[in-house]
Amino acid sequence: MRLKPLVATLSLALCGTAIADEGMWQPHQLPELESILKAKGLEIDAKSISKLTEFPMNAVISLGGCTASFVSPQGLVVTNHHCAYGSIQYNSTPENNILENGFLAKSPAEDLPAAPGSRVYVTETVTDVTDKVIKGTQKLNAKARYDALEKNEKALVAECEADKNYRCNVYSFHGGLEFYLIKSLEIKDVRLAYTPAMGVGKYGGDIDNWMWPRHTGDFAFYRAYVGKDGKPAEFSQDNVPYVPASYLSVSAKGVQDGDFVMVTGYPGRTNRYRIAAEVDYTFNTSYPKSREHNSKYVSLIEENSEDGSKARIAYESTIAGYNNYIKNYGSMIESFNKGTMFERKKQFEQELSAWINSDRKRKKQYGKVLKELSTLVAQSQEHNERDRMLGYVHRSQMISTARGLYRLSYEMQKPDAERESGYQERDLPRFEASLKRMTRRFDATVDQAILLHFLELYAALPKEERFAEVDKAFKLENGFDKTKHSELLAQMYASSALNDEAARLALYQQPFNELKNSQDPFIQYANAIFAVMKAEEDKDKALAGKLQAARPQLMSAIIAFNKAQNKPVYADANSTLRVTYGTVGGYSPQDGLVATPFTSLEGLLAKNTDVDPFNAPKKQQDLIKAKLFGDYTGGMNTVPVNFLSNVDTTGGNSGSPTLNGKAELVGLLFDGVYESIIGDWDYNPEFNRSIHVDSRYMLWVMDKVDNAQNLLDEMNIVK
Amino acid sequence: MRLKPLVATLSLALCGTAIADEGMWQPHQLPELESILKAKGLEIDAKSISKLTEFPMNAVISLGGCTASFVSPQGLVVTNHHCAYGSIQYNSTPENNILENGFLAKSPAEDLPAAPGSRVYVTETVTDVTDKVIKGTQKLNAKARYDALEKNEKALVAECEADKNYRCNVYSFHGGLEFYLIKSLEIKDVRLAYTPAMGVGKYGGDIDNWMWPRHTGDFAFYRAYVGKDGKPAEFSQDNVPYVPASYLSVSAKGVQDGDFVMVTGYPGRTNRYRIAAEVDYTFNTSYPKSREHNSKYVSLIEENSEDGSKARIAYESTIAGYNNYIKNYGSMIESFNKGTMFERKKQFEQELSAWINSDRKRKKQYGKVLKELSTLVAQSQEHNERDRMLGYVHRSQMISTARGLYRLSYEMQKPDAERESGYQERDLPRFEASLKRMTRRFDATVDQAILLHFLELYAALPKEERFAEVDKAFKLENGFDKTKHSELLAQMYASSALNDEAARLALYQQPFNELKNSQDPFIQYANAIFAVMKAEEDKDKALAGKLQAARPQLMSAIIAFNKAQNKPVYADANSTLRVTYGTVGGYSPQDGLVATPFTSLEGLLAKNTDVDPFNAPKKQQDLIKAKLFGDYTGGMNTVPVNFLSNVDTTGGNSGSPTLNGKAELVGLLFDGVYESIIGDWDYNPEFNRSIHVDSRYMLWVMDKVDNAQNLLDEMNIVK
Repeated sequence: MRLKPLVATLSLALCGTAIADEGMWQPHQLPELESILKAKGLEIDAKSISKLTEFPMNAVISLGGCTASFVSPQGLVVTNHHCAYGSIQYNSTPENNILENGFLAKSPAEDLPAAPGSRVYVTETVTDVTDKVIKGTQKLNAKARYDALEKNEKALVAECEADKNYRCNVYSFHGGLEFYLIKSLEIKDVRLAYTPAMGVGKYGGDIDNWMWPRHTGDFAFYRAYVGKDGKPAEFSQDNVPYVPASYLSVSAKGVQDGDFVMVTGYPGRTNRYRIAAEVDYTFNTSYPKSREHNSKYVSLIEENSEDGSKARIAYESTIAGYNNYIKNYGSMIESFNKGTMFERKKQFEQELSAWINSDRKRKKQYGKVLKELSTLVAQSQEHNERDRMLGYVHRSQMISTARGLYRLSYEMQKPDAERESGYQERDLPRFEASLKRMTRRFDATVDQAILLHFLELYAALPKEERFAEVDKAFKLENGFDKTKHSELLAQMYASSALNDEAARLALYQQPFNELKNSQDPFIQYANAIFAVMKAEEDKDKALAGKLQAARPQLMSAIIAFNKAQNKPVYADANSTLRVTYGTVGGYSPQDGLVATPFTSLEGLLAKNTDVDPFNAPKKQQDLIKAKLFGDYTGGMNTVPVNFLSNVDTTGGNSGSPTLNGKAELVGLLFDGVYESIIGDWDYNPEFNRSIHVDSRYMLWVMDKVDNAQNLLDEMNIVK
Repeated sequence: MRLKPLVATLSLALCGTAIADEGMWQPHQLPELESILKAKGLEIDAKSISKLTEFPMNAVISLGGCTASFVSPQGLVVTNHHCAYGSIQYNSTPENNILENGFLAKSPAEDLPAAPGSRVYVTETVTDVTDKVIKGTQKLNAKARYDALEKNEKALVAECEADKNYRCNVYSFHGGLEFYLIKSLEIKDVRLAYTPAMGVGKYGGDIDNWMWPRHTGDFAFYRAYVGKDGKPAEFSQDNVPYVPASYLSVSAKGVQDGDFVMVTGYPGRTNRYRIAAEVDYTFNTSYPKSREHNSKYVSLIEENSEDGSKARIAYESTIAGYNNYIKNYGSMIESFNKGTMFERKKQFEQELSAWINSDRKRKKQYGKVLKELSTLVAQSQEHNERDRMLGYVHRSQMISTARGLYRLSYEMQKPDAERESGYQERDLPRFEASLKRMTRRFDATVDQAILLHFLELYAALPKEERFAEVDKAFKLENGFDKTKHSELLAQMYASSALNDEAARLALYQQPFNELKNSQDPFIQYANAIFAVMKAEEDKDKALAGKLQAARPQLMSAIIAFNKAQNKPVYADANSTLRVTYGTVGGYSPQDGLVATPFTSLEGLLAKNTDVDPFNAPKKQQDLIKAKLFGDYTGGMNTVPVNFLSNVDTTGGNSGSPTLNGKAELVGLLFDGVYESIIGDWDYNPEFNRSIHVDSRYMLWVMDKVDNAQNLLDEMNIVK
């Protein structure tokens, strides 16, 4: 009896239309949803999924930014090829190009070290620390509240990380209504066990990114290693494979159209509870402007670096990243303009207000919150054009490096616990890595051209919007002059040492005074604007403190409103472990077209041009032509390659295991379709489809193409 | 019993795979196909379709390049919007922009004259004149044969056109195996009765051209007028609507997925019987090179005319035309590279040869024909690079105009019957129109830039490939020099008068000597290269004469080969009246995607951006939102807009009535899908889909959007 109203109304909460299978649920919420899950096809106990230390949740791990899962008792980890990409690239040489050709360790002894900094995080406990985090903050407001919250959080993290084997974080849910401390075992010795060739793992490349039909074998295998004592340890030949508490079985039977699936993983960020004013600003101002400036950013790189040149190569991944955003924003703007999200959002707020105002007690508690939040949101947007343009100016790698080094030295004057986050001891390895990475990702001509362009746009702002310190540093008091400012920048770039890795590292963690007195023009710039930027930062924190007070109240009202209608509410994604469920199925991307739920080996072959990114290995092509499908068809006349489902996912879910009702791995989540990109703001049941690699394809490639029998043998394959 | 082998093997004839619904049949062949047609859903007698003077064939007419049909007893004609486009544009003014807003004559008195030269051709007789055409040519070869054939054909045409009410043409079938004289009533007073707004008639524009999903209301109505005596007459207020012998009823019920449909019309040209060597050359050399040069051609126009400038506007339709070809060739090259046409073609020739050689008599008759044809084809390709580059040089409008005027004066020295076709009295109205049209489609800067570019490519050919006369005229003897040749062309353009309409018309039909002695540099060029080009033309005619001898023999062998397997053979399209049949249905353009057979009003609305070409009239949008579908749903929950079927069509079929089994009009053929473009060479049952406007959409727009009740009243609507 609960099923129907629940399913039909889950998201009425936000948008007033009947929706199914929306929701990124915290594991502890699952028992609440058990009747739905069972009706849809869950065969195991919903309670078991709610417990992080039990199967299957203890087999699901985070790589930091991606999700993965254990699939053998010897620490074998499966994730997406694109999640292991850095490690594959790191181990590639012109002589042994494993990125191009793939790699298989025939035994654990042959496993290759993953890229520096690679980690496996096994979430062990999730503790509600709301009381501890908000303790002593409730009477505070603005910056005082912000600082107090941060101090409490840092203390909890520091206490938890006293055990050096763990990484701890405090996550805010519902905009600060609840806080959880998440403690994860941090496995530091991660190795690459197997990857298919790029023509499998990245088949379709950027062209097919976010697209259906899809034929990407987006999978790769790591192995987690620990010290002989079973505890996390830095890389050492003496380390041994980690023995996970449990691991997932992998299905060779796969799924069919309409089957139940669930995805467990670490979705990054969604904005489903933003208020109408935020939606309006984001889709009508922020995204369109970002799209325009980002497109210009890419053109500037291309105009200032010749195709194939060293400079261009240095920026290839930057270009790919920007193009990714351009496509992403383009899709969201398109969906927004076609759809009704904004109308539904406004209508929901009206309904919520009506409900609040219909009861005196509620009116007293929540009556002002929506208006209050709207006022704060308006404040945060007040200088958006200035913030945007200065933001682009500060994207110059010379400036951002200078400002980072300067800030680090400033923060290091304080005790670790009091430092700004990002500059604490725990953050330093990443900081140093970024100083080194710049060597391969920087070209002075390109950087200078980009800075010049955005400086011109910044200078075009009204004088009262600009910062006198920035104007002075860049001699913009009397406006922008292309010739003059080109020369000025040329001088700055010529006399700065920050384009040199050794020089950057020499400034790393140096006494603050040394940076204050540096003659480097970019460090001088960082020094010149430091005070005013710090003041702005403090203003932002004060605003954040106010928002942190207001938003939980709104969420509290929304939860109460939904509870009154017997609807559970899931929190926006925040990189913590979630479960989403749904069914395998296609959709109609537009009138006259239907996307079918599976693609096939034959379709892969039809797409093949032998030119990157449609260059399947010759052996694979021959196997397809010969129809050597093995036992991986699951009753179809082919081996399915990718499939669609309506599970609710976002970035961070990449690499997540897709499970059937028995919690067997039937696929890996790796992407969403183009029309689902706006899902970060608005789940549309008509268009929201996630894309999975089919486990049958993964096993077929391992067995037939790459002869990875040693891995198949240590896994539990369900036939 | 005949059905299965026939359907399954029809096109084994050419490609060795089972194919259904391929074929553009001559009406007289239909009785042969009756059992198939009946089984598929034809309800009327197949024999009736075979007779041009009976219903429904006498309702199907040609507009010259497009097809149309009579749909009322008062000469009302329905065709595609894009077929009537010139007439709609011709009647548009800034004050009364009927192209943008649409037009409806509330009574015949309000009908608007169609663009000059608009014609309605009603085919009355089709006579086999093979004997007369080949009389006295069989012992001849090369140019003598070519000339003799042409003389015979011209005599037949002249005799037939002695009645000035008729236009007559001799058409060659099967590469010259058969000849038919087709005599059509030529109705010269054609008027525009109704067109929807461009936001209906050209909805989706060039973006959706050749694409599915599609939502184009590609229909418009003419009315044919004749003199009071019922005979064709030039436009006059005294003329009266033509009373056709019959007209089509229009269905408001439409079709469903899987329904039988047939299309009667005038397909232009196909190449399904070309030999392997021709396929190889076309797809591996000709199309890729044309695509490259045409793309450059468009860039040159764009680089040399500013967006929105007068020059750019003059070339908009040229650009659209070239882009159309670029997309067309792109699709064909793509399909060719993905598909197996070439392999199947070679295999067919092997099988044919084996069959020929297995019988002594056949071997004697056909044993050498394939080799002979291959030799001739190789000869025709010998100087293809030179012919291509000189062809582009001669596309300069200054050069082509000069050469045309020069040639016309040359030909006019001879009696009309002996003149080259294209320069006879019957061709002059078109010739003059093109001299006038140039005024609106020419810019000297653009023309000169294009000429300069292709002159450079021509000059890069080996000296022995070039013509000394061309080299001399353009001073290319010592190679190409950009600066020098820019100046040379600038001088030529400055001193020529051909960019002036009056000057062009002043040279039209002038005595040959006057042109020979003209001081105009482009006329001088025409004069300088005339002899050598004429000699080349004669060589081409000699080769054509040989091909005209060889190709019918091959076709004769192919027909015999197929007859031995009980398979009828249809001739390549040649702008004569044909019938094709098939069923309504979708297809899978690629693995993971299915094109469904119908689009809907809702889909049209979802696509709408209010920006051209996705700008449906406001009233139409409101009607859709209000779901005011009237009686035009045919049992669906919407009004279907366009639909797909597997009928076998090509350019020239545009505007063809799509008929159901009762010969009621259920749609208008207006396009094919992107994957079907290669159909001109190879019908692929998997991808060959034609796109039709649904009659229900046409009637709904007429009734609900445009209030064209007066037209609906004179039509016979089947409800």
